Amino acid sequence: LKLLTLARDLKRRKGREREEAFVAEGVRAVEELLRSSLRIRGVIFAPQLNDAPRGRAVRELAEARGIEIVEVGHREFSSAADTESPQGILGIADIPGRDLRDLEVDPSERATIVVLDAVQDPGNVGTIIRTAAALGAVATVALPGTVDPWNAKVVRSAMGAQFHHPVFSSTSDGLTSFLESCRGELWVADGEGVPLQPGSHPGKPVALAVGNEGAGVTDGIKSLATRVVSIPITGEVESLNVAVATGILLHQLSA
Amino acid sequence: LKLLTLARDLKRRKGREREEAFVAEGVRAVEELLRSSLRIRGVIFAPQLNDAPRGRAVRELAEARGIEIVEVGHREFSSAADTESPQGILGIADIPGRDLRDLEVDPSERATIVVLDAVQDPGNVGTIIRTAAALGAVATVALPGTVDPWNAKVVRSAMGAQFHHPVFSSTSDGLTSFLESCRGELWVADGEGVPLQPGSHPGKPVALAVGNEGAGVTDGIKSLATRVVSIPITGEVESLNVAVATGILLHQLSA
Repeated sequence: LKLLTLARDLKRRKGREREEAFVAEGVRAVEELLRSSLRIRGVIFAPQLNDAPRGRAVRELAEARGIEIVEVGHREFSSAADTESPQGILGIADIPGRDLRDLEVDPSERATIVVLDAVQDPGNVGTIIRTAAALGAVATVALPGTVDPWNAKVVRSAMGAQFHHPVFSSTSDGLTSFLESCRGELWVADGEGVPLQPGSHPGKPVALAVGNEGAGVTDGIKSLATRVVSIPITGEVESLNVAVATGILLHQLSA
Repeated sequence: LKLLTLARDLKRRKGREREEAFVAEGVRAVEELLRSSLRIRGVIFAPQLNDAPRGRAVRELAEARGIEIVEVGHREFSSAADTESPQGILGIADIPGRDLRDLEVDPSERATIVVLDAVQDPGNVGTIIRTAAALGAVATVALPGTVDPWNAKVVRSAMGAQFHHPVFSSTSDGLTSFLESCRGELWVADGEGVPLQPGSHPGKPVALAVGNEGAGVTDGIKSLATRVVSIPITGEVESLNVAVATGILLHQLSA
């Protein structure tokens, strides 16, 4: 039952940092894990998984790959699961060791990097990672104050995107050094910015920072920005959801 | 304690349909409710609200408006609340009586209507309503199979948008009649469609249908579409989140 103890430990950020591992829960997430190049430490099943043909298929695939498998009862599984109605499968895998200094982006590259500045809702962070991967951003950078990108709910919302798309945790100094090394610009999304037009990507690396759900981008990051961009909105609504806003801006940048 | 019983009743869709009322929970949501023209039946407080200055201000505003107010203990409040860590305030208001036949859109109007075809996640539906309001759609229509737009989590995710932006529940026949009456087109978002370019709004009413998180738009609705539109995606990701996709398409339509 060592795997079960590990999975329980990984529910807390401290446990994930100490073990350098995370949990991906659900049939879909474990399928994505098996498709990725991440090292899988083990898979835990509960009896209800055998009711679903797709669940059995994942189990067989994991067995064929020689991955350590443990079957536990409903109650044990629930103690490690993050969802209220668990599908009865979770995988434990290594968090890829990602240092922003290792990200190579050429100064002449028309690349976009998404920067999360204290984005706190796990669903939003997961959706942004999924969106960044889908719309061709080369990486996502999580600044301090952002929810841990390897939190179970983030992993679920990202639908496996971060198993392929690189996600870095960094300080703002680390981000500044990275941008200096690739001669990239820092753009900030803010309601008071200038509407971003399609075709405005400058043809060199751009880091696009989006901010906290309530407070927006911090003053520290704003002070580093070369450009402040916005999305025009109408009506009685104060702002867009941060994941929706990120999607619209990335789509504009890719046009 | 009649208000408390009512609030508990409204946790279920049947209760909301019978009472034609819904619950908006949290300081922000009740603030929006007080700003809207919806009829408020009452407000319920718990003691923890008095710890927050903003919470006290909302309470005073409700009192000044002569709205019925009940203060209950923590435990009673939790029995009516939908969140795990309730802020200690909820408002009960009438669901506006909205029949799609009452929505007047001129055939020459450059209007966009968002159609939800079996979108099931309450967070997605709320975020789409918020996005539709922010990006100038004239209404949102929920087709059968879509989560109840007055569900507590939808209301929370919509951040009050549906207190102003009209949301209709309709059958696909009702939608067809509406589109005939305003000579509007039905467009469908689907991974296999044609990428939507900015400036492609035809200058007459367009209903843009987005579909279920897993299965997409139903065949029935697809068969009624005059155009199938998509958003190009790259990488290992299968699809965009439906709220993000709706945001990108609405933004393109408003360009």
